Amino acid sequence: MEELYAVIMAGGQGTRFWPFSRRAQPKQFLPIISDKTMLEETIARVQPLVPPSRILTVANQEQTNQIRRLCPELSEENLLVEPQGKNTAPSLLLATATLYLRHPQAIVAALPADHLIADVERFQNKLIAAAAAARQTGHLITFGIPPTFPATGYGYIQFKQPPLYKIQGESFYEVAQFKEKPDLETALQFLQAGHFFWNSGMFIWQAETFARELAEAAPEMYNYWEQIILALQSEDFSKIAAIFEEIPAISIDYALMEKASRVLMTRGDFGWSDVGSWSSLLEVWPADEQGNAVRGKGLLLESSGCLLFSPHKFVALIGVKDLVVIDTPDALLICHKEQDQKVREVVKHLHQTGKKELL
Amino acid sequence: MEELYAVIMAGGQGTRFWPFSRRAQPKQFLPIISDKTMLEETIARVQPLVPPSRILTVANQEQTNQIRRLCPELSEENLLVEPQGKNTAPSLLLATATLYLRHPQAIVAALPADHLIADVERFQNKLIAAAAAARQTGHLITFGIPPTFPATGYGYIQFKQPPLYKIQGESFYEVAQFKEKPDLETALQFLQAGHFFWNSGMFIWQAETFARELAEAAPEMYNYWEQIILALQSEDFSKIAAIFEEIPAISIDYALMEKASRVLMTRGDFGWSDVGSWSSLLEVWPADEQGNAVRGKGLLLESSGCLLFSPHKFVALIGVKDLVVIDTPDALLICHKEQDQKVREVVKHLHQTGKKELL
Repeated sequence: MEELYAVIMAGGQGTRFWPFSRRAQPKQFLPIISDKTMLEETIARVQPLVPPSRILTVANQEQTNQIRRLCPELSEENLLVEPQGKNTAPSLLLATATLYLRHPQAIVAALPADHLIADVERFQNKLIAAAAAARQTGHLITFGIPPTFPATGYGYIQFKQPPLYKIQGESFYEVAQFKEKPDLETALQFLQAGHFFWNSGMFIWQAETFARELAEAAPEMYNYWEQIILALQSEDFSKIAAIFEEIPAISIDYALMEKASRVLMTRGDFGWSDVGSWSSLLEVWPADEQGNAVRGKGLLLESSGCLLFSPHKFVALIGVKDLVVIDTPDALLICHKEQDQKVREVVKHLHQTGKKELL
Repeated sequence: MEELYAVIMAGGQGTRFWPFSRRAQPKQFLPIISDKTMLEETIARVQPLVPPSRILTVANQEQTNQIRRLCPELSEENLLVEPQGKNTAPSLLLATATLYLRHPQAIVAALPADHLIADVERFQNKLIAAAAAARQTGHLITFGIPPTFPATGYGYIQFKQPPLYKIQGESFYEVAQFKEKPDLETALQFLQAGHFFWNSGMFIWQAETFARELAEAAPEMYNYWEQIILALQSEDFSKIAAIFEEIPAISIDYALMEKASRVLMTRGDFGWSDVGSWSSLLEVWPADEQGNAVRGKGLLLESSGCLLFSPHKFVALIGVKDLVVIDTPDALLICHKEQDQKVREVVKHLHQTGKKELL
C-alpha cells in the first residue's frame, strides 16, 4: 500500500529498566529482547510493508542522533525532532502534520518504538488490514489487545459488538469508550464483561482524517495543528520550538482518541507486550526448567523464577526465588519480581541525592 | 606473664567468604569485621599481654609475605613458615617445638587468626588465667564456648562438674570427652545436658606439657615432634619440608586433645564467633531497624534481614528478605542467608570449569 507510512515514536524516557536504561539510553535504544535494540526490532517489523523512505521517527535531538547511528537507512528528512518531550499528542501532531503536507491521503501507522510483538507476520497482516480500514472508512483505527489478566497498568477500550466492518478478513468494532487505568475490581469487571480490550497505544489513521477529527472533537489541539502546519511550511524550526513550549503535554488518547466520534478497534492478537518492567522479560527470554531466564554469566543453585542480566560479571545465585538481578558496571539492582515497579523510586532517590552519574 | 607466647594460626584457606575471599586472600587477611584485617584484630587483642617479640605466626610462604606487610612489628624469626598446609596439628607441632627450643617453660596460646571476640578485656583476663592454669596444673587448656543454639557445625567438649581448679577467679573443668560435630538431635541433647560446650579451637599449654602429653597419648605424632626438633636445631628448612611431606594432615583436636589425659576446659564466654560464613556477620555488623547490615553503597527499599557488602558499586535492593549480597569487581554473590554454606559449591564449580581468575 503506497500511502502507508510508519511513524515510530522513539521519544520515551522511561526509568523502569534502570540500571540498564539511563537518561541517554532509554529502553527503545537497548537490546532488551534480542541482540538488536527495540527500535531496530520495531523498524524491522514494518520494513517488509513500508520502505525506509516512508518510515519516520519522532524523538528529541539527542535520541535522533542515536537513531541516525542505529538506522542509517532512514532518510534525514524522516527523522523528526521534537524540541522537547511532551507526551504522545504533540509528537503525533508533528508527525501527522509533516505527512499531511507531503500527502494528505497518507496513512499513518503510529507505533511505539519499545513494544514487543511476538507474531510478526500476523501483526503485518493486521496492519495492512487496518490501513485499508483507515482509508475505506475514514475512521481512526486502534489495536485493542485481548486481556489475559485484570491489568491495572493499562487503559481499556470498550467496544460494541457486532463489528461495524469486516475488511480483509479482519473485524473492526465501533469504540464505545476509552477507559483510564482501572482499579483491580473494575479491571475484573472488564475482564468478565469481555468487550474491554487493552489500549495498545498503536494507532492507524489517514492524515486528513486525523485533521478532521481533531477539528471536530479537540478544537484547542486543532489550533496547535494549524500552527504546526504553518511552522512546517515556513521551514523555521524555532517556530516549532515555540509551539512545543506552549502545547500541553498530553497523550493522544486523552487529546483525541477519547473524544473523537469515529474510532474503530481491531484485535491486536499478535503476542503484544509493552515490556513494561524487568519482570515482564521473564515471559520473553528463554527460561530453564526452574523458570530462570539468564542473559550473561551466571551460576544458579537451587534458585527459581529469577531474571538475571549480567553481561560483564560472573554472578552466583544460591537458594533464591523470584528475583530480578540486573548488573551493570556502576549499579546493581536486586528486586523481588513483584516489586519491580519500585525501580522508579530508586531513580527518584538518585535524582534527589544528586547521583547524576547513575541516572 | 613473661613466658606467655601467642601463636597465631594464619594458614587457613577457606572458601566460605567467596567472592571477597580468594585463594590469595583468605578470610584472615580481609577486613571483614572492621577496617582492619582479622589477623590484625587478633594480634591487637593479645598485644597488651604479649609484646611483639613473643607473638608468632604460622602460615605458608605466600601468606607469611602478607603477614610481614600487615604486621611489620613482628620479628622475622617469629614468622613461622609451613612448607604446606596440613591442618592444625602440624602447624602447632612446628610452633610449639620452635618455642620449646627457645624456652621449654614457654606457655603457648594457640589462637586462630580469623575468630571474632566481642569482649576483648574479658578475653584477656581469661587468657591470663588460662596461662596461669597451664603453668600451675601441667594440663592442656582449652576454651569451651557456652552454646547458644544446637549447632551442628562445631565440635563439643563434654566436661565434668564441679571444676577441678579455681585459678585467678576462673573455673577449670576436667574434660571428659571431645565430641565430633553432632547431628541435630545429638546437638539438642548436648544443649539440654548443659555440660557440653563448643570447641573454640583456642588452646593454651606449656611447651614441655605439650611434648609430654604428645609422647604419652600420641606416639606417632611424637615421632614427628622429635624430627621437627632435630630439623629446627639443624636450621635446615628442607628437613622441615620433608617432614611436612609425610606428616598426616589432621587437626590438633584429633591428633592430641581427644587422646590426652590431662585436659582442662574453661569458659570462653567473651562473645566468641568463628565468623564461619557471610550470614554470621548479620550478628556482627551494625544493622538498621529492618535488620539490614550494610557495608558500602546501598539503597534498601522494603527489604529486611539482608547483609550487603558493596564497597565499589551502588546497589538497590527492593522488596527482598534475608539475602546475602556480596559484590566484588569481578564476581557477585546473591544467596539466601540460610544457604550460604553452599558458597563452597560455587567455588568447586569455578575449579571444575577452570575459571581460575575467580578463585
